[in-house]
Amino acid sequence: MKHTIIALVENEPGVLNRISSLFRRRGFNIESLTVCRTESPDYSRMTLVVDTSDTDAEQVQKQLAKIINVVDVQDVTHEPIVVRDAVLVKIKADAAARADVMTIAEIFNAKVVDVSPEELIIEAVGYESRVDAFLEMLKPKGIIEITRTGRIAMPRCGTPVRAMNNA
Amino acid sequence: MKHTIIALVENEPGVLNRISSLFRRRGFNIESLTVCRTESPDYSRMTLVVDTSDTDAEQVQKQLAKIINVVDVQDVTHEPIVVRDAVLVKIKADAAARADVMTIAEIFNAKVVDVSPEELIIEAVGYESRVDAFLEMLKPKGIIEITRTGRIAMPRCGTPVRAMNNA
Repeated sequence: MKHTIIALVENEPGVLNRISSLFRRRGFNIESLTVCRTESPDYSRMTLVVDTSDTDAEQVQKQLAKIINVVDVQDVTHEPIVVRDAVLVKIKADAAARADVMTIAEIFNAKVVDVSPEELIIEAVGYESRVDAFLEMLKPKGIIEITRTGRIAMPRCGTPVRAMNNA
Repeated sequence: MKHTIIALVENEPGVLNRISSLFRRRGFNIESLTVCRTESPDYSRMTLVVDTSDTDAEQVQKQLAKIINVVDVQDVTHEPIVVRDAVLVKIKADAAARADVMTIAEIFNAKVVDVSPEELIIEAVGYESRVDAFLEMLKPKGIIEITRTGRIAMPRCGTPVRAMNNA
């Protein structure tokens, strides 16, 4: 099953390399990965999605926690979390097809962000399954290019915050 | 300056490790990184943001292109692109503070996605500078946690598509 792992890491060159080495050694393919700065300039937060068993995910979590510059690791797969995935999709849409594509976009609360005589770029944000459903609806129209952020995840309101306080 | 590099890579374990090794060797800190599947199940698309000189960025691009499983690399920093950054932010907001936070959210077209008696989670999507401005406005209210996707980028409509066709 897909495991969502959040790691808080110090902003040091080489930390991504140590983490990706671990995944390579274990032969796990990372389904998606986002790394970005956080509320503190000294730390980055990673959201990793790995398709693996519960036992293997537990091993990965333990190994990650041992890596230098990794401050905190949580497998939030079975926790109450908010998840989001953002996508930019470029699609074929001439004047005749445009209205139809825009209706689909509207249903999914997606937003047209660029247009040319033959193409549209649409931005969609939401749960991955909803983003997937949106892309599925667009497929017959002719998808030119997709760029996705991959999953970001955050424990729901009211759940205890670990992270920097423990650092 | 901040360079935005898009790389199309084959979905093979180890490719992320080879790329992060290159950045470690050169001592570059990756400002943000997203990796996710694309319109083809065989490929992932990475968006990398690296703060470096034009000369160094050109070197990085050349080195990346030489890596096995890397199909295409473009430095799109000076190209016409659409960029997006998504953020989830958890903020202190009791009943008294909630209306004020929600007004700020509305101005930035941000969306409340979770609530508890003392907290809110808000989703915002847009250009990084706008997301930054939103977070700056929220700071005095008490930010608990931030998770960002980092930048995704796509060449504007009407620009020639490289990517898979060349693979």
